[in-house]
Amino acid sequence: MRALIQEWPLLCHKIIDYAALQHGAREVVSRSVEGPIIRTSYADIRLRALQVRARLAAEGFERDDRIATLAWNTSRHVEAWYGIMGAGMICHTLNPRLFPEQLAWIMNDAQDRMVFVDLTFVPLMEKIAPLVAGLKRVVVLTDAAHMPQTSLPGAIAYEEWIAGAPAGSDWLPADENDAVALCYTSGTTGNPKGVLYSHRSNVLHAMMVTRPDAMEISSRDTVMPVVPMFHANAWGIAHAAPMAGARLVMPGGRMDGEAIWELLDSERVTLTAAVPTVWLMLLDYLRKTGKTLPWLKRVVIGGSASPRAMTMAFEKDYDVEVIHAWGMTEMSPVGSLTTIKPEYSALAGEALYDLKLKQGFAPFGVEMKLVDDSGQELAWDGKTFGRLKVRGMAVASSYYGGAGADSFDSQGWFETGDVAHIDPLGYMQITDRAKDVIKSGGEWISTIDLENLAVDHPDVAEAAVIGVSDPKWDERPLLIVVPRQGAEPDAGAILKFMEGKIAKWWIPERVAFVDEIPHTATGKINKIALREMFRDQQA
Amino acid sequence: MRALIQEWPLLCHKIIDYAALQHGAREVVSRSVEGPIIRTSYADIRLRALQVRARLAAEGFERDDRIATLAWNTSRHVEAWYGIMGAGMICHTLNPRLFPEQLAWIMNDAQDRMVFVDLTFVPLMEKIAPLVAGLKRVVVLTDAAHMPQTSLPGAIAYEEWIAGAPAGSDWLPADENDAVALCYTSGTTGNPKGVLYSHRSNVLHAMMVTRPDAMEISSRDTVMPVVPMFHANAWGIAHAAPMAGARLVMPGGRMDGEAIWELLDSERVTLTAAVPTVWLMLLDYLRKTGKTLPWLKRVVIGGSASPRAMTMAFEKDYDVEVIHAWGMTEMSPVGSLTTIKPEYSALAGEALYDLKLKQGFAPFGVEMKLVDDSGQELAWDGKTFGRLKVRGMAVASSYYGGAGADSFDSQGWFETGDVAHIDPLGYMQITDRAKDVIKSGGEWISTIDLENLAVDHPDVAEAAVIGVSDPKWDERPLLIVVPRQGAEPDAGAILKFMEGKIAKWWIPERVAFVDEIPHTATGKINKIALREMFRDQQA
Repeated sequence: MRALIQEWPLLCHKIIDYAALQHGAREVVSRSVEGPIIRTSYADIRLRALQVRARLAAEGFERDDRIATLAWNTSRHVEAWYGIMGAGMICHTLNPRLFPEQLAWIMNDAQDRMVFVDLTFVPLMEKIAPLVAGLKRVVVLTDAAHMPQTSLPGAIAYEEWIAGAPAGSDWLPADENDAVALCYTSGTTGNPKGVLYSHRSNVLHAMMVTRPDAMEISSRDTVMPVVPMFHANAWGIAHAAPMAGARLVMPGGRMDGEAIWELLDSERVTLTAAVPTVWLMLLDYLRKTGKTLPWLKRVVIGGSASPRAMTMAFEKDYDVEVIHAWGMTEMSPVGSLTTIKPEYSALAGEALYDLKLKQGFAPFGVEMKLVDDSGQELAWDGKTFGRLKVRGMAVASSYYGGAGADSFDSQGWFETGDVAHIDPLGYMQITDRAKDVIKSGGEWISTIDLENLAVDHPDVAEAAVIGVSDPKWDERPLLIVVPRQGAEPDAGAILKFMEGKIAKWWIPERVAFVDEIPHTATGKINKIALREMFRDQQA
Repeated sequence: MRALIQEWPLLCHKIIDYAALQHGAREVVSRSVEGPIIRTSYADIRLRALQVRARLAAEGFERDDRIATLAWNTSRHVEAWYGIMGAGMICHTLNPRLFPEQLAWIMNDAQDRMVFVDLTFVPLMEKIAPLVAGLKRVVVLTDAAHMPQTSLPGAIAYEEWIAGAPAGSDWLPADENDAVALCYTSGTTGNPKGVLYSHRSNVLHAMMVTRPDAMEISSRDTVMPVVPMFHANAWGIAHAAPMAGARLVMPGGRMDGEAIWELLDSERVTLTAAVPTVWLMLLDYLRKTGKTLPWLKRVVIGGSASPRAMTMAFEKDYDVEVIHAWGMTEMSPVGSLTTIKPEYSALAGEALYDLKLKQGFAPFGVEMKLVDDSGQELAWDGKTFGRLKVRGMAVASSYYGGAGADSFDSQGWFETGDVAHIDPLGYMQITDRAKDVIKSGGEWISTIDLENLAVDHPDVAEAAVIGVSDPKWDERPLLIVVPRQGAEPDAGAILKFMEGKIAKWWIPERVAFVDEIPHTATGKINKIALREMFRDQQA
């Protein structure tokens, strides 16, 4: 029997409608690409998003057209987002850290017909545009006064473009399962693969992350997503903040420690989110200047594992609660967070930092399981590690165009490619990527555990571990270290430091010192490049 | 274009699955009907709910069968709830405060085939059962030792009944729009009307109420819904608490001030919810005994308006935050709450209690509008009052069996039957029921405003206002007062007390003193009965 409840589809533009109606005057503050701080509100963002929607339609773009953005986190980017989604089109966020050839490949794969570009990325887009045949229109996210000379097709300044929008438009009616957004994962192997989000998955994910055991976003918060909108949906914050009516601070293109601190301080940000690389820069800036974080209450750290020292610095030195989080583009992206269950509420100091090395537990709407190589389900005992599979209300069912079909099994579980263990209370810890885990004498060694341990050594700035061939054990770990500035660390001392903190047979025999560790476009350690660099050690 | 996101239907039994997996050991504490405090956990509740589900199927009950409950808030009632819903059947919560004839009418209208009954209500059900032809089985929510002699058809003790369940059962697969629960509104006019909830509406509503600007329920909370599960879904708490992993305290059948206080104190409840009548009893008990509320952080007050003095007592005398809420059975039921937007965050003392006279603002998922008698939309200026209409993700689209069709308009708005104003920040205040509002000289007078003002007078225990005929003004208000125990209030003094606090022409000319004001089955003032009592004044 069908229930007698209204059809009220979960649509992304209802989020900005709600924010404009119930929290209309709430500020949205952006560091603009042009320089000055710009202040607007949810009510204005909604009106301008409606102009985007009207202008898109007026130009002949149609339902399901892919409209790209290549832009920092700013209010104009938010307007474009909601405008595209509310026009029934698909907002395709491009990651400017990819190579031009990769971006062109992605834009062609997506069949992007138009792109919104920040001033910063006009030169990059000038390289890409000639390679993307379907691209009809480039809107530069600036005003006429700042509009550069450019060869880009149909180039026009955003402010001029939306000023020409016909008045009186409204959102295009939509089904909640319609596609609204497309984001490619930056695969370290093979071509990038597109994840195609729905209205429904974005709305449910926003409801999920605003809840108390996730990011707990209220109308009294000021939220700054440093994590970019092109990086896995800004972890949902560009939907979650307006849904909660939270004040939103957008950091634009300046990602250095000083710039981040300035906004955290001047705008009294209460909640922020970014990858560890960003927080390294911030903590470094704080240490050098003696600045503090008096307003900030919580920091969400994800994208890659938050080192123990980072968690400790935030919590102990600056009285900021760390929420360690894990997710994937394929999950919209949040999969788990280290909010504290009552069983752990007495933890403090070292024991608490230990817990926060884990990636946390799944909120309602995310299911997890661990399996071994034969697909057998493994126990949640906090030790046994296995392949992590997930399922949920905002998890991809396949990739755009059918790529990577082997990541999805017949019961609807997505193979994350991560290796993890889960403790009896549900706290999951990633121990490795499945393709990075070292198989030594038939047992697995977690490269991430070794890396986390190594960076706790005071002379180590960054560390990476890869497997190298070994005649006896098949593989053994090689520890690669970037020394902290001014330090001259000793291999033996670092290995000695590991003793007693980890199984003895996990400790590497070899350490290599390098000036720099290569990273992927999303800031993760590029292990493929490292394996290439140390190919001679593999023999 | 359809997005590429997993089909992950929003199903009620996923809530209890999640609670059992992620918060399995979390306590569920009940004051049992037999007397003792009973302690169980979400993991156990899930297992026993699965037994309910298996036994229902084994007895030949089928998808969509209506299975009733006539029970207090206890863990057994929660088990029955999830067991029925997870069996693909429809859980019909009966309100024991209705007359036996009304209950029989409702059970026949719903075509209930089975009922779970608390010991308390066995005599009541014995009166009803002979009138309900389709009733095949009565399960008494107790164990064999406490099982009474009874003539009820197929009567069996719950513990015995679930012990006979076949092992190894799982939930019945379902569509998220399938009906899972049925709750009748206690209409003061006409027959009660059934609201038929879906899996989806219950899950979305639970996500909504756990969010920070609603009830903000986390895994670290201990929640006691004093509001019964048969009263509009326990305001969603029986779904929201397990979804959040919150510890749950169920007060059973003892509703007096002492019993409520005992549980609040011994179980260290952090969040509770009930109608004002319950809180009057609690506050009275606290004043008499000098007891305090050291653990309680927030109290949700709804069902009828929280008087200013009640809000003040909780906040000022006991340091408990009041969340004034409004909703309707037709809304699952939450429609608005007085959490504090930042624009109001500086309010304190009197100004804050004034704000909390309002019913609050709508969370994401609820839409409101005000219209005049011609359907014209009215401004949100905090003064203009009109008919309140709502729409949303957990709002009824029609009543069971097609009753009351005129409450639903062609754009999908539900006519609440309330008259309200909404301030520019979205805070709504109910000023009356549409059928109670007094039309005096062509203008509307809010009976609720007058009642709220009257109860602020120290000599007034309870107050009600009804319209009486007036040759000049059509209608004038009559104030009906129950004096506080020991007080001998003077009509003139009470009317004098109103001066300057309300428009002069609103102040009644007449006051009637009574020993008791009649209430409906859900604790609201029964104005139909009052109009009958004062019929002679109408002439």
